[in-house]
Amino acid sequence: MKTISTSKSHGGIQGVYAHASEACACDMTFAVFVPPQAKDGPVPVLWYLSGLTCTHANVMDKGEYRRLAAELGLMIVCPDTSPRGEGIADEKDNWQFGSGAGFYVDATEAPFAKNYRMYSYVTEELPALIAQNFPADMSRQAITGHSMGGHGALTIALKHPERFKSCSAFAPIAQPSTAGWSKPALEKYLGTDEAAWRAYDTTLLIEDGKRFPEFLVDQGSADGFLQEGLRPWLLDDACKKAGIRLILRMQDGYDHSYNFISTVMDDHLRWHAQRLG
Amino acid sequence: MKTISTSKSHGGIQGVYAHASEACACDMTFAVFVPPQAKDGPVPVLWYLSGLTCTHANVMDKGEYRRLAAELGLMIVCPDTSPRGEGIADEKDNWQFGSGAGFYVDATEAPFAKNYRMYSYVTEELPALIAQNFPADMSRQAITGHSMGGHGALTIALKHPERFKSCSAFAPIAQPSTAGWSKPALEKYLGTDEAAWRAYDTTLLIEDGKRFPEFLVDQGSADGFLQEGLRPWLLDDACKKAGIRLILRMQDGYDHSYNFISTVMDDHLRWHAQRLG
Repeated sequence: MKTISTSKSHGGIQGVYAHASEACACDMTFAVFVPPQAKDGPVPVLWYLSGLTCTHANVMDKGEYRRLAAELGLMIVCPDTSPRGEGIADEKDNWQFGSGAGFYVDATEAPFAKNYRMYSYVTEELPALIAQNFPADMSRQAITGHSMGGHGALTIALKHPERFKSCSAFAPIAQPSTAGWSKPALEKYLGTDEAAWRAYDTTLLIEDGKRFPEFLVDQGSADGFLQEGLRPWLLDDACKKAGIRLILRMQDGYDHSYNFISTVMDDHLRWHAQRLG
Repeated sequence: MKTISTSKSHGGIQGVYAHASEACACDMTFAVFVPPQAKDGPVPVLWYLSGLTCTHANVMDKGEYRRLAAELGLMIVCPDTSPRGEGIADEKDNWQFGSGAGFYVDATEAPFAKNYRMYSYVTEELPALIAQNFPADMSRQAITGHSMGGHGALTIALKHPERFKSCSAFAPIAQPSTAGWSKPALEKYLGTDEAAWRAYDTTLLIEDGKRFPEFLVDQGSADGFLQEGLRPWLLDDACKKAGIRLILRMQDGYDHSYNFISTVMDDHLRWHAQRLG
């Protein structure tokens, strides 16, 4: 693991790191905020998964999480959203596939299966690296994310309810297997057999019996992707049928940007801190 | 004036706007955050002047001012740091001069005098535009800034003590006329007669009798520009001699980045809000 930069912020350290990833077969960059409480021992970890087109840097720059994370004693880990670099299959002009659009799946189709293994990366390889290199209490983890990363957070929590004390999402893609901006990606990463997609679709995972105790979801009412891409009502339906507690808050007038995320960030950090103990 | 974008944030509106500037003889872009209190009437205005290489966007993205500005009812205006565009004299490979490095002066030397009139722009033209187009209470203004913008804020406050209720700065350039990264710029903008530089140098303005009641200045101790470029002790000396109250806080371990600025941003917003009434 290589340190790209560290900078003191709100009493903690905001760092950026890189390492040779086995899962993605390329160098991967990620950001970690270590709160000041870490000097007294391991601190709980909140994973933040970013949305389409983002790197580790967007939420680090615009998410406004450090002030309260420093107060609450939360480590914030922000992975990249895909493998990147020369020799990695990509569609340069398509922002909904390839670089910046890993969708937190393990691709099974050539040529993407070689590198696009973001599910293994964020659920296995990176957690192991974090546990080894940072003052993280891995028995206290939580997960959140935005848009494609909200989809990532919800699906990963449903498949690892024993690992995460809490899960929330900002404007998540509720049902990626039927949304226009994600269905073509799932087909290319996972093949045409839609049965394989179910493992990466929040609503279908719930339909298939996966459970998580409760979700906090915020969604802006002026979000341009609301009707076609995000559709939180599908998550609401799925949770109601399954008896999962969903706090779905429609936020009047907010769009899909970090201006929305940063506005509700404090609420999400408190939600997780309460459950992380 | 043209609206580039607006986005709801922390209950207010973060907007980006452009207009044809007469002072700079080019299109200029700026950011304004209007807090929710503006629906009940004009709100006080805090000017934030940015540092070298920045545009209006850096503090908008990374400054973390909106949460508390929305709570305190402050409008935040963030100008660009120089004229920009084709046909504008520049030194492309020099980050300390030209684009992104206007130093808040009115250039008198050709070819820069045609466009590099940032002093007139931020003290006359843009305030008039703000007064005309936004719910701003121009009888309640305050000013702050970072690095080159801290220099801008301090010099402008000293020359307009009647206009500003308060002034603060983040890691300001205390004496630009003798610092390596600013002296060559002053020479190119203002000519070789150093007498002309005094009007744009905080310590020399104080020496020449300009006064402002008090300044709040934060400075990171791990700032790589501290010893050569910023030198807050020169400001401290000047203020002591002149009887100006200076609260100079050395912040242990902080660098020159927005991680530092955002850490102390709340304190500055409260400082200004208290004095704006």
